[in-house]
Amino acid sequence: MSKKAVVLLSGGLDSATTLYVAKKQDFECCCLIFDYGQRHRREIESAKHIAQKAKCKWQVVKITFPWKGSALLDRRALLPQRRLGQIPREIPSTYVPARNTIFLSFALSYAETIGAQSIFIGANAVDFSGYPDCRPKYYSEFNRLSQLATKAGAGGRSIKIFTPLINKTKREIILLARRLKVPLHLTWSCYKGMNKPCGLCDSCLLRARGFAQAGIKDPLIQ
Amino acid sequence: MSKKAVVLLSGGLDSATTLYVAKKQDFECCCLIFDYGQRHRREIESAKHIAQKAKCKWQVVKITFPWKGSALLDRRALLPQRRLGQIPREIPSTYVPARNTIFLSFALSYAETIGAQSIFIGANAVDFSGYPDCRPKYYSEFNRLSQLATKAGAGGRSIKIFTPLINKTKREIILLARRLKVPLHLTWSCYKGMNKPCGLCDSCLLRARGFAQAGIKDPLIQ
Repeated sequence: MSKKAVVLLSGGLDSATTLYVAKKQDFECCCLIFDYGQRHRREIESAKHIAQKAKCKWQVVKITFPWKGSALLDRRALLPQRRLGQIPREIPSTYVPARNTIFLSFALSYAETIGAQSIFIGANAVDFSGYPDCRPKYYSEFNRLSQLATKAGAGGRSIKIFTPLINKTKREIILLARRLKVPLHLTWSCYKGMNKPCGLCDSCLLRARGFAQAGIKDPLIQ
Repeated sequence: MSKKAVVLLSGGLDSATTLYVAKKQDFECCCLIFDYGQRHRREIESAKHIAQKAKCKWQVVKITFPWKGSALLDRRALLPQRRLGQIPREIPSTYVPARNTIFLSFALSYAETIGAQSIFIGANAVDFSGYPDCRPKYYSEFNRLSQLATKAGAGGRSIKIFTPLINKTKREIILLARRLKVPLHLTWSCYKGMNKPCGLCDSCLLRARGFAQAGIKDPLIQ
């Protein structure tokens, strides 16, 4: 069995930890980074730095979305701002329609091209932001599709998606990250791309709560 | 029920016919065209002309694939050349790994953004070129994924993929195209992008055989 894996890397805490989980399992990791018109370049740069630090190959896929429909793609849209404890369960305006399906499709294409049989994604269904494509049953279904979608699958050697963080709390992810020596100082979670995290967006709130619960100081917060 | 549909339009015979099938069913069609580093621009221009002729909106998604792995993306690779009757059943070098999965993922994103509940794709499993993602069971599986992948699906209004040509022979597609007044002279099937079809690639061979069996003259062949 091939020990190559494609790892989706966003530059955030979860995907960085996922990369180190895959490395720990002795996979030769090839990171896939998406440049899809995010509001800022900061997370793409973080992803590249994390891949370099982990001594892994990386590829950037550039996508131009001609439609908007998400506050994450539209620089003029207001991001939701809340205080800690106010994280909602409904689907927020930062939702990009079918984003994980698009990302996994590219991962499938890349995996088939390089002969990898594993794809790692840092999806999380516990402290998640209410996106439909973060739920475990979505990934089971994608695995079924993967068996039919590729030449590899047609030949019986299908490509499998792994979601090692799916059932972990943010606290557990941060503790795992520390154990695996993930370079937390290189990760970036904030939806805004300033010099410091804004501390107000959903992503900052989840991160802050996770570090607080883990009893660890976030290296990004001075 | 919304009567908007997203139609994947490549500029070829099958996708153009699919667009006219959807129009015939009174859908307001929004065409999705991919600029993904094909060997030539000719098919993208054909797709735009067909959408204009059909009086439909269209959007172009631009994708930069950093990896090769298909003769369709690599201008330096040799395309398979065969004579009529030699169309193989194995997967050819023009296969782009997971291409239809990538295209359908974008269609899902676009459909959710504009509130369409239907996606039309001109996939065909009869006179097909041996691609794994052209088989009917692949589309049934994608429909199951679609129910889980989107906000629309989470709300019970899932987006459905339609493949009206899946079981038709090329002869039947050409006869249907004539009946629906598809502008066949605007379609482009050849994998090469010269002034005239090369007549030797798999796609030219399938097209020529279809026209011959339908007893219709191909308007592209003088």
